[in-house]
Amino acid sequence: MSVTAPNGFRASGVSAGLKPDGARDVAVVVNDGPSRAAAAVFTRNRFKAAPVLWSQQVASGGRVRAAVLNAGGANACTGPAGFRDAHATAEHVADALEDSAGEILVCSTGIIGERLPMDTLLDGAGTAVGSAGRDGGTAAADAIRTTDTVAKIAFKRGAGYTIGGMAKGAGMLAPELATMLCVVTTDADLTAAQCDALLRAATRRTFDRVDTDGCISTNDTVVLMASGASGAAPDEAEFGALLTEVCDDLARQLVADAEGATKSISVEVVGAACEDDAVEAARAVARSDLFKCALFGEDPNWGRALSAVGTTRAAFEPDAVNLAINGVWVCRGGAIGDDRSKVDLGGRDVTVTVDLSAGSEAATVRTTDLTTGYVHENAAYSS
Amino acid sequence: MSVTAPNGFRASGVSAGLKPDGARDVAVVVNDGPSRAAAAVFTRNRFKAAPVLWSQQVASGGRVRAAVLNAGGANACTGPAGFRDAHATAEHVADALEDSAGEILVCSTGIIGERLPMDTLLDGAGTAVGSAGRDGGTAAADAIRTTDTVAKIAFKRGAGYTIGGMAKGAGMLAPELATMLCVVTTDADLTAAQCDALLRAATRRTFDRVDTDGCISTNDTVVLMASGASGAAPDEAEFGALLTEVCDDLARQLVADAEGATKSISVEVVGAACEDDAVEAARAVARSDLFKCALFGEDPNWGRALSAVGTTRAAFEPDAVNLAINGVWVCRGGAIGDDRSKVDLGGRDVTVTVDLSAGSEAATVRTTDLTTGYVHENAAYSS
Repeated sequence: MSVTAPNGFRASGVSAGLKPDGARDVAVVVNDGPSRAAAAVFTRNRFKAAPVLWSQQVASGGRVRAAVLNAGGANACTGPAGFRDAHATAEHVADALEDSAGEILVCSTGIIGERLPMDTLLDGAGTAVGSAGRDGGTAAADAIRTTDTVAKIAFKRGAGYTIGGMAKGAGMLAPELATMLCVVTTDADLTAAQCDALLRAATRRTFDRVDTDGCISTNDTVVLMASGASGAAPDEAEFGALLTEVCDDLARQLVADAEGATKSISVEVVGAACEDDAVEAARAVARSDLFKCALFGEDPNWGRALSAVGTTRAAFEPDAVNLAINGVWVCRGGAIGDDRSKVDLGGRDVTVTVDLSAGSEAATVRTTDLTTGYVHENAAYSS
Repeated sequence: MSVTAPNGFRASGVSAGLKPDGARDVAVVVNDGPSRAAAAVFTRNRFKAAPVLWSQQVASGGRVRAAVLNAGGANACTGPAGFRDAHATAEHVADALEDSAGEILVCSTGIIGERLPMDTLLDGAGTAVGSAGRDGGTAAADAIRTTDTVAKIAFKRGAGYTIGGMAKGAGMLAPELATMLCVVTTDADLTAAQCDALLRAATRRTFDRVDTDGCISTNDTVVLMASGASGAAPDEAEFGALLTEVCDDLARQLVADAEGATKSISVEVVGAACEDDAVEAARAVARSDLFKCALFGEDPNWGRALSAVGTTRAAFEPDAVNLAINGVWVCRGGAIGDDRSKVDLGGRDVTVTVDLSAGSEAATVRTTDLTTGYVHENAAYSS
């Protein structure tokens, strides 16, 4: 159902020729209104790609008519020329829609440090606008894939309105926005300020807590576009909960499809003095290459997880920390607990629970194992 | 030449039976004086192994008669029982030397979260003390290996004195002391306070700047033992420079033998506003799994390195940063520089230079590539 599940949106995904294999590589998502309220969040990497620099300006206006997205090149670290390329892409889409470039969001993904072939991209963007339709959501989600093996889409129905979404991202998936592009649409009637507050709250607990390889991209963008086509002004709490569910669904799909992964790992930290402590401790475990290699080998090597917790500033006493893997408390009181051979790591899903015994706050960070497949893919693929 | 190169020291390495293959696994280094001034630095991981907790107490006294080291078990996360084991080991060695347990340093390495077989260890420690001799330095260095493929030793001669050293460590090699055990000996006549200041200065620029996998061990220990047997009271600046050379030599050997590595990578950051900025930026690049996979694939994917720099708080303007790989400035002004195809990554050694254009400070962090071999080794080996 993707981004065209809500009323008021058209989308498409076309093959422009940016991907060497001729697969779809340019997508547009067009908001036909009546409203075009929108908000977006971007990577906190200080090297922001040209489309991010452009789209930050667009989002600051609170209105987005359309988003144009391409795979096959990130247009990052490309200097002033790259910024002109992003601007030209927005102008080209605006012309095709007879609208203002200042309301056209641009997103790119692919290798850093190379210019985009602009003739190819602009031709594709024009074709994409021309073919955008109410049934184009799935093709759009397909076009933004890079090393993603499947398209990621989600939707939820609320009281008189719908939320739809698509996302891409399979590597460089890390903190402060997983490395990803994501477009979420709704036909609810929201102001730009509501979009901003609700999107920030939803991403903070979903995409911001995916960390497959600790690498923060230059291009991360998540945009929420609201058409108001349903006429429904939603209850904010209900809408926020549904939006979080859509983002969470997409975040799960990203982890499930992460490069080379054989395990989907949830690192839960409980008993934390504050939520920030819980996130910090969970992220430290999620980033331990050694622990993630052990899980690839189905070895419940809890010492590697505990030593990662030991590198954080979270409040805890070392001799009060407990740790379970798939429900077996292999570490109690910072020391040896139940027999580690009782841990069953045969399945895809692994839950690591760290009890800091320092309070009542909790958080979960999602990650994957570190595999020979990840290394192979990232040694071979210039992305 | 190892730890017995300086006068006043005996050492040995014996097979106690801790390693399943029957290889040497217990080492002692004995200081016969006349001085026994010493200092040590330890992991900053908050889960400190029992031998670290014990040895911190010993080192605080500024005197070390002997160090006993074992592979085959880290005695970490073993609670009060593990601490008693470390204490018992010190007592056993002290009895054999007819000396005080309060001056016996204990170091362990191996899997976290399992008790040591104490009968086996104590038997081995007794044998090691009995067989310690002036020619035992190489055997001691051999005994502390875990996944190390070679023993790491170094020595330097100063004005009337000698410095010798041995180290182990091939995985969990990270910041704030690379995961390692290291014993450095000298026959120079130094006070404990001099040992402490000189050792801290030397490790800060050497072992602290090795980061192969971002994982900080529970057991890191570096000790400097001074016998005074040469009678030479060294010039502090000269001694400090030589000590740094010995530590640097051992640090290079650790990186050269890191688990699964095919590249030895020096990440140099220049043009930094301060040394801390340079270290932070260099460490960020050294920890980028994606960049390290690219170098394994001999792909000069500089965008992955630059995006790692972009996650730091170091002072720089994104459009003023330059980056070279093996001398080719592939990124200039935060954008595309020279043709990346000019970079030759065929050799073992790779130098990545990041010019922040923000000042005149510099620092280098040593790391390795991320390889399928690393994943295989750490998926298969409980360590």
